[in-house]
Amino acid sequence: MYAIQYDEDIIVVDAGAKFPDEGLPGIDLVIPDVTYLLENRDRVRALVVTHGHEDHIGGVSYFLKQLNVPIYATRITLGLIDLKLQEHGLQRETELHTITLDSELQFGGMRLTFFRTNHSIPDCLGIAFHTPEGVVVHTGDFRFDLTPVNGQYPDIHKMARIGEEGVLLLISESTNAERPGFTPSEQMVGKHMEEAFLKAQRKIFVSTFASNVVRVQQVVEAAMKTNRKLALLGRSMVNVVNVAMEQGYLHIPEGMLIEQQDINTLPPERVAVLCTGSQGEPMAALARLATNSFRGVEVLPEDTIILAASPIPGNERNVSRMIDNLFALRARVIYGSGSSTGMHVSGHGYQEELKLMLTLMKPKYFVPIHGEFRMLHHHRQLAESVGVKPENIFIIKNGDVVDIQGGEARCTRTVPAGNVYVDGLSIGEVGTVVLRDRKQLAEDGMLVVIVTLSRSEGKIISGPDIISRGFVHMRDSEDLIRELTNLVATTMRNLQREHVHQWSVMKKEMKEKLSQFVFARTKRRPMILPVIIEV
Amino acid sequence: MYAIQYDEDIIVVDAGAKFPDEGLPGIDLVIPDVTYLLENRDRVRALVVTHGHEDHIGGVSYFLKQLNVPIYATRITLGLIDLKLQEHGLQRETELHTITLDSELQFGGMRLTFFRTNHSIPDCLGIAFHTPEGVVVHTGDFRFDLTPVNGQYPDIHKMARIGEEGVLLLISESTNAERPGFTPSEQMVGKHMEEAFLKAQRKIFVSTFASNVVRVQQVVEAAMKTNRKLALLGRSMVNVVNVAMEQGYLHIPEGMLIEQQDINTLPPERVAVLCTGSQGEPMAALARLATNSFRGVEVLPEDTIILAASPIPGNERNVSRMIDNLFALRARVIYGSGSSTGMHVSGHGYQEELKLMLTLMKPKYFVPIHGEFRMLHHHRQLAESVGVKPENIFIIKNGDVVDIQGGEARCTRTVPAGNVYVDGLSIGEVGTVVLRDRKQLAEDGMLVVIVTLSRSEGKIISGPDIISRGFVHMRDSEDLIRELTNLVATTMRNLQREHVHQWSVMKKEMKEKLSQFVFARTKRRPMILPVIIEV
Repeated sequence: MYAIQYDEDIIVVDAGAKFPDEGLPGIDLVIPDVTYLLENRDRVRALVVTHGHEDHIGGVSYFLKQLNVPIYATRITLGLIDLKLQEHGLQRETELHTITLDSELQFGGMRLTFFRTNHSIPDCLGIAFHTPEGVVVHTGDFRFDLTPVNGQYPDIHKMARIGEEGVLLLISESTNAERPGFTPSEQMVGKHMEEAFLKAQRKIFVSTFASNVVRVQQVVEAAMKTNRKLALLGRSMVNVVNVAMEQGYLHIPEGMLIEQQDINTLPPERVAVLCTGSQGEPMAALARLATNSFRGVEVLPEDTIILAASPIPGNERNVSRMIDNLFALRARVIYGSGSSTGMHVSGHGYQEELKLMLTLMKPKYFVPIHGEFRMLHHHRQLAESVGVKPENIFIIKNGDVVDIQGGEARCTRTVPAGNVYVDGLSIGEVGTVVLRDRKQLAEDGMLVVIVTLSRSEGKIISGPDIISRGFVHMRDSEDLIRELTNLVATTMRNLQREHVHQWSVMKKEMKEKLSQFVFARTKRRPMILPVIIEV
Repeated sequence: MYAIQYDEDIIVVDAGAKFPDEGLPGIDLVIPDVTYLLENRDRVRALVVTHGHEDHIGGVSYFLKQLNVPIYATRITLGLIDLKLQEHGLQRETELHTITLDSELQFGGMRLTFFRTNHSIPDCLGIAFHTPEGVVVHTGDFRFDLTPVNGQYPDIHKMARIGEEGVLLLISESTNAERPGFTPSEQMVGKHMEEAFLKAQRKIFVSTFASNVVRVQQVVEAAMKTNRKLALLGRSMVNVVNVAMEQGYLHIPEGMLIEQQDINTLPPERVAVLCTGSQGEPMAALARLATNSFRGVEVLPEDTIILAASPIPGNERNVSRMIDNLFALRARVIYGSGSSTGMHVSGHGYQEELKLMLTLMKPKYFVPIHGEFRMLHHHRQLAESVGVKPENIFIIKNGDVVDIQGGEARCTRTVPAGNVYVDGLSIGEVGTVVLRDRKQLAEDGMLVVIVTLSRSEGKIISGPDIISRGFVHMRDSEDLIRELTNLVATTMRNLQREHVHQWSVMKKEMKEKLSQFVFARTKRRPMILPVIIEV
C-alpha cells in the first residue's frame, strides 16, 4: 500500500495482503497498518487499485472496514475486489468506480491519468499523478510483453509522452531486478501448452493462478485444438473464471465446460481439468488430487499434470512434496520454467524491461518498490546505469515519507506503518508476545505445574500436579515427571521454611528450579507455567 | 544409510543425518532407525563411509552408541568422523580403519573394492561388493569433473573394468536427475573467485562449506594472488580446515593465516575472511556478520561478500534474509550460480553424468537412491534411456529390501526403518504425538482451565482459573477470558445438577463447550487442557 498526498488530498494506491512465513505460526494473513490514514481520514479521497492480485487487493476489505473510501480500478480488478467484498459482506456500502485507460480523475490539486502495462492478469494500470509540483508515476506491477496473447499491448507511446512532459518521481516495481535480460513472451507458454496437450494420452490437469486469465485462455485453446472438454476444480478457479467470462475477458465455447462428475464418465483423452493449488497449498484442489483425497476425481497412471506457475518463495517445499506425490501416482508431471517445455513465464519485467521503463520516464527522482532489499538495491543500480543521479534515488522502508517541495526531494520523516496480523477473526490482536509464546511452545512445548495451598497454614494440600504437552510423551517419561514433581515439592517446602508466601516469588522460584533441572536433563527449554491455587 | 547383506554378513554403508524441516518443530536432527541392524547385531561387520558430508556421517556417533562396529573410510572422511566422535566422547572405543582406492576388504563371502569419484569434498569413494551372486555397486555421491582442480580424476577406467566384468545391481545417487546436461567444472568457481578478488577494494568475506576443501583451496589461491591475509571465522571452519591441513589436503602458505583480532588492524584491502554460515544459519558467522552482531568483526560499506554455495532446499528464506541484511550494510554481495559470476557448481552429476555412470556399469538391475521421489523417477527414465530393462529398476522406500537370488531380484520384503528424532539430549523420545501437540500449540496456542472441587460436596471451591499462552494476549482479552471462565462455571454447575462426577466426563464436557465457544468467537482452535483438582 502506498499513499500519494498533495496538499490536503491523499490517494491510496493498492491495499494488499501478504501470506505469513514460518516465523508467524498460526497467522492467516498480514495486512498493512493504516494508522496514518485513519489519523487523516478526512483527507483520504480514494483507493486506486492497479490490478487484481492478492498482494494488491488482499487487504481491501480490512481497509474499508476501518475507512470507507470509494475504490477506482479497471473492470476485472473491480470484479475480483467484489468477490472479496462479498466474503466480508461489504458490497452494499462500498462505492466502486470503473476506470479505463483514458480515464482522468481530479482530486484537489491532483489529476490522475493511467497507462496500460502487461502483467500476469489483464487490465493492469500504471498511474501518473499530475501535481503542480510535477508528475509522480507509480508503475504498478509490469513487464513489457511486445507480443501479448490477448492483444493488450503495453502503452509505450503514452509512457513516452508522460516521460517527455517530465517526470519528477518514478515509483517502480523491483520483483525481477536481479534477473538479467528480458522476460520471454506469454506466447511461449501457449506453444508448450499445446504441445503437451497433443502428446497427452489420458486426462490432463492444469494448475495455474485463476487470475492469470490469459493463461487460462491458452489452456482453453489447447483443449479446443485437442477436442477435450474442460472441468474447473477449486472455489477460486470457479469464481474467477466466472467473473472473467461475464466480463468478456475469457472466452469458453458453448458446451465445453463440464461438471466435476462428468470427469469420470467421459473417456480420459477427452478431458482436461483446470484446478487451483499451483502453490501446493495443502487444502487446494491439486494437493488433494496428489494424495487422491479429492472426492470424486482421481489421478490415474499416465494422466498428465501441468504446473503452469512457479512456486512463490517459501512454497518450494509444499510444491515439491506435491510433485513427488503426483509422480508416486505414476502421473506424467510437467513443471519448471525451462525454455524447452516451460509452462510459466514471469509477469514481472527483468532488468532490461526495468531499464526500459526508467528510460521512457527519465525521472528526476526514483524510488524502487515491491521487492526485498536486495532487489531494490539492484533496481537502484539499474537506475544509475540509465542516468538517474545516485543522490536522487531513495530506497525506503515501510513508513518512510518522501517529501518533495520546490522540486527538491527529502526522505527525513516517517509515519506509523508496518504489519498487522490477521488470525481467525481477530485483526491486530495477535502481537509479538503471543507469537513469541507460540514459537517457544512449538520448539519445546510446555509444562504446567499446579500447587494447591491451604489458605490457613499455606501447606500444600494437593499436587504438585504436572501436565506437559509438546515436551515429552508423558506416558514414556513417568520417571522424569516424578522427579519434577518432587523438585517442586522440595522447592515449596524450602520456601515455606523461609516463610516466603508471596505467590510471585514462589512462582519465580519454581520456574527457575524447574527450567534449570529440565535443561540440564534434556537440553530443552519448554515453557513453564507455575500455578498456585489457594483454598 | 544402506545395508548390503550376503549370507551371514552385513556391511552398513554411511550413517547420515538430515536436518528437520518446519514440519518438525524443535527437532535438532533426524537420524536413521537402525532396529534391523540391532536385531542382527552379531552379523554387522563394518560401517563403510563413502565420504564426509553430514548426510553420510551425521548419524555415525548415534549409530556407534547403539552398535559399536569398526569404521572404514578414506583419511579425510575419518578425520571428519573423528571430530564427531570427539564431541560425543567416543574416540577411545571406536575402531577406525583408513582405506585407499586400492584397498580390498573381505567380509565372509563379500569382497569390497573401491573407485574414486569426484564430489564437493575430497576422497569420495564408490564401492563394489563382489559376491558369489554377482557384483553390487554403490556409487556414493558423485559427479564427473574431467578437469578437477585437485587432480583427483574420477577413476573412469576402474569403473569401466567393473562394468565389463558385469554388474548385477547398481545403486546410484539421484540428486540432480532433474537437471539436463553436465555440471560445469569446479575450475569455473576458481576463475570467478579470482576475478572477484581482483575487483575488490576492501575486505572480502567468503562463505562456503568448510568441507569443500578444493573450494577453500581456491579461496587461498585467490588471496595469495591478491596479496591478502586469511582469517577463519566459525568453529566448523576452523576445525575442518585444521583437519584438511594436517592431512595435507589443503595448503596454506606459512604466515598467511591471521587471527580474528588482526582483521581490523590490517588494511582492508589486505584481508580475506573465510566463514561459516553459507546456508544463513542464524547462529553461524555470516548471519551474525550480516546483522553486525559478530563481536570484534564488522562488515563495512564496499566490503565484498561472496556466497560460494547455493541454498539447500528449505534454507532459501534464511539465505535471502541474510543477503538483504548484507546489502543493507552497503556491502557488495556476490551470490547465485550464474555462469558469468557464479561462485558455486554442484557436487552432484547432472543427467549426462548419471547416464555416463549407468553406461560404464551397464547393470542388470538398478536402484536409484539419494533424492526425492521425482528425482528417483527421473533417474529411472535415464536408466531406461541407456538400456536398463524397466522391470529391472526398483524405486525403493526406507526399509524396502531388494533380494537377489540366482541372478533374479525381487523387492517384496521390508524391515523396520524410518526416522528417529534427536531433540536436545533425547533420541527417539519425541514422537508423533509430541510433534502433533507442538504444531497445534504453534498454530493457536493453548488454554489451561483449572477447577478445584471439594472432595466432600464436589462443589467448586476455587476457580475456574484460566491461563492462556500463544492464543490471545491475556491483558488485552480480559472480556473473552471472563466469558470463558463463566462458561466453565456454568458447565460444571450443570454437570453437578445432573450428578455427573467422573472427572473424564467433566473434562470432556469442559473441553467441548470451550472449544465450540472459542472457535465460534475467534475461528481458532487452541489446545484446551482442563484440570480438575479435588481437596
